[in-house]
Amino acid sequence: MPDNIHTKYLLGEADIPKSWYNIVADMPNPPAPPLHPATKQPVSPGDLAPLFPQALIAQEVSGERQIEIPDPIRQIYTQWRPSPLYRARRLEKVLDTPARIYYKYEGVSPVGSHKLNTAVAQAFYNKEEGVKKLSTETGAGQWGSALALAGSYFNLDVEVFMVKISYQQKPYRKNLMQTYGATVHASPTDLTDAGRSILASDPDSAGSLGLAISEAVEVAGKSGGSIKYALGSVLNHVLLHQTVIGQEAMLQMQQADDYPDVVIGCVGGGSNMAGLAFPFIGATLRGGPKTRFLAVEPSSCPTLTRGLYAYDYGDVVGATPLMRMHTLGHDFMPPSIHAGGLRYHGMSPLISQLYNEGHIEARAYPQNPVFAAAVTFARAEGIVPAPETGHAVRAAIDEALAAREAGEERVILFNLSGHGNFDMAAYDAYFAGRLQDHEHPEQEIAAAQSRLPVVK
Amino acid sequence: MPDNIHTKYLLGEADIPKSWYNIVADMPNPPAPPLHPATKQPVSPGDLAPLFPQALIAQEVSGERQIEIPDPIRQIYTQWRPSPLYRARRLEKVLDTPARIYYKYEGVSPVGSHKLNTAVAQAFYNKEEGVKKLSTETGAGQWGSALALAGSYFNLDVEVFMVKISYQQKPYRKNLMQTYGATVHASPTDLTDAGRSILASDPDSAGSLGLAISEAVEVAGKSGGSIKYALGSVLNHVLLHQTVIGQEAMLQMQQADDYPDVVIGCVGGGSNMAGLAFPFIGATLRGGPKTRFLAVEPSSCPTLTRGLYAYDYGDVVGATPLMRMHTLGHDFMPPSIHAGGLRYHGMSPLISQLYNEGHIEARAYPQNPVFAAAVTFARAEGIVPAPETGHAVRAAIDEALAAREAGEERVILFNLSGHGNFDMAAYDAYFAGRLQDHEHPEQEIAAAQSRLPVVK
Repeated sequence: MPDNIHTKYLLGEADIPKSWYNIVADMPNPPAPPLHPATKQPVSPGDLAPLFPQALIAQEVSGERQIEIPDPIRQIYTQWRPSPLYRARRLEKVLDTPARIYYKYEGVSPVGSHKLNTAVAQAFYNKEEGVKKLSTETGAGQWGSALALAGSYFNLDVEVFMVKISYQQKPYRKNLMQTYGATVHASPTDLTDAGRSILASDPDSAGSLGLAISEAVEVAGKSGGSIKYALGSVLNHVLLHQTVIGQEAMLQMQQADDYPDVVIGCVGGGSNMAGLAFPFIGATLRGGPKTRFLAVEPSSCPTLTRGLYAYDYGDVVGATPLMRMHTLGHDFMPPSIHAGGLRYHGMSPLISQLYNEGHIEARAYPQNPVFAAAVTFARAEGIVPAPETGHAVRAAIDEALAAREAGEERVILFNLSGHGNFDMAAYDAYFAGRLQDHEHPEQEIAAAQSRLPVVK
Repeated sequence: MPDNIHTKYLLGEADIPKSWYNIVADMPNPPAPPLHPATKQPVSPGDLAPLFPQALIAQEVSGERQIEIPDPIRQIYTQWRPSPLYRARRLEKVLDTPARIYYKYEGVSPVGSHKLNTAVAQAFYNKEEGVKKLSTETGAGQWGSALALAGSYFNLDVEVFMVKISYQQKPYRKNLMQTYGATVHASPTDLTDAGRSILASDPDSAGSLGLAISEAVEVAGKSGGSIKYALGSVLNHVLLHQTVIGQEAMLQMQQADDYPDVVIGCVGGGSNMAGLAFPFIGATLRGGPKTRFLAVEPSSCPTLTRGLYAYDYGDVVGATPLMRMHTLGHDFMPPSIHAGGLRYHGMSPLISQLYNEGHIEARAYPQNPVFAAAVTFARAEGIVPAPETGHAVRAAIDEALAAREAGEERVILFNLSGHGNFDMAAYDAYFAGRLQDHEHPEQEIAAAQSRLPVVK
């Protein structure tokens, strides 16, 4: 191939990162500590022991810049890592833009998204410490299917509380988890106190990520130690595991002899955005290029753009530690959009702090323009984005169009965090004109935020 | 990684084959010519001109060993090629077998199967010759979605006749084709004489590949030249385009310092089996290793294992040239199994001849054991096979178990031709016990074969 039409940048097995990158080491201010939900005092590692293995608790509170990736995890990573970085030349042509658009494609993992990067790590550490079973929640099912497969790799049972609206909208994801051998419930269930309390007040509840977390945490907490809990985003150690994405992308941008002006990711809990962006943000924080970082969320669940930066629970019933984060309020119930993975009231504390301190920008989109962008992308590049990922695609296209308006070159890098193969019903609904766009009235968001916990 | 636990064998962009391999050059006997459906005389290239562009007709009848791949096609191939070759170490462990199992994974293409290898080539040559629109048929939808995307890449309209049972069973595949911008009909339709004639006798017809071909051929034939027809398997030029698979696999087996004792592929029309196996068969025919070649089909549509080797039409109504092939009879209507891509009454003439001359073995499986094998594979290797591909997985597992019984090392290579992301409803039906296994009574097959055309 002539050099000037390269579209794919590949690395070798030896280029899979040997350590995860911990952005805490480079942040201007230390992270605010999580607080115990009862005492409102900083949690100790011991407080987290009923839920997580020691190795993950240590990573959660670590300030080390580099944390070594154990060989058995890297060995499994070789199945799909290093993932390819693409130059979207056909999309650039369709958009008639002077911008250069790159995307890191995490849909090459066998479950079709970035979630397997942390699922494998979490399953490994739990297995090492003798755990037999994991409980978790899932929205659209990307995380649940990743943990189901990781459990199968490490011979761990997996029990998944899947948000009911996604359970109904995305039967293929449920089938995938079952194919991997996991047990899947539509949340809210009558298996937990949390689920029963919601069903008592709203028998038709469509569920939410925050509620499914309550159920999964309760199952682990009441197990007496035989079941641990696993979370697919939000927490520091989860974001840490995803930084393999950005570390590889830095090498691949070098191959392309280019560097991003703007790095884009969709955000629900924040893990795919963090995975791609943190290594680049670290470079900027250490005095490197003045890259822009853009987090993209649904306008129906506008955590960064309209949420408060405050201590709040990670779940609906208040069973988790309080985290300082951008939040719409822990009992905020987002509408039933198809990007189920973005229906979370809160946001990763690390992303929230970086946003609050001005290192990250945020933007919100309704779902119809998101799907329009995803279809444009699919016809040009062949890959059908997951509805969540479509938010990043929309922002990348808008940045490219803005570059055209401004008549300037702009280097855009975004995370194509997952494919939409299991989400085609959402595309069907889009083409049929059945998707609604939501904008929340001010008083609705204010009401949920008025119920934030009081922290002195 | 330590050398002894390699699981993935990758090639560089420069290793994408520069030519397709034409097995005709190495076959002991020349292929039997296709016959005109009216005159029963060998067709001339001119007879095929209403349906295909000149470049593809030339490839269809070529005896050259190597046919150069044009640069624009190789450029598009770089998006997903070279595809990875994996050693299935986790599966080997689960099976406790001394066999070494390798699989070539074609699901990395953006449409999730090998079909894009030929779709891109066919779209390219049609575009070069000024064609504006392509008509085609599809069973499960792998081929239809591949041609839909290739059409989008080359700015060609695509009209797909999708077998009705698959249209109903696999809505996600239909949605995928629509996302790429194609028009999709459930076949039989009332848009063609062929469709109307079937609907008149059976308004509830579930359709068949042979019938959908009749419809697509009719649309092209009556267009006066503005629409050409594209076929996803069976024909020589289609199999030719797939040989990039096997050529890459040969290099990757060298990387692994190994060579297959048996090469396995599922067969509907024969293209993925041919794509992997033909370069290896060519090596054997030229005096190389005595590799076994195993074609795997559904027992509900047992073309090789129970069909006749005879001249027959490629479609239901007899609009196509007669091809000498293994056939169940052109109006054979297979049951509605989930491996829609294997529901074809005939078989590639090249595969048929190699089978008839003893160079290829064949085996048939009912669908429940196929899905059992596919689930075993998914839990060990993470990738959920398409139902069609599950047939190859079943055979590979059985070969590995036979090696264990015999206490012998055996090197098994199979084509994981596509993933099952769009087919999860089939897995759901399998787990729910809703899948039926079919074995055709002798007289049913004999009846369809009694209606074979008479050729002197």
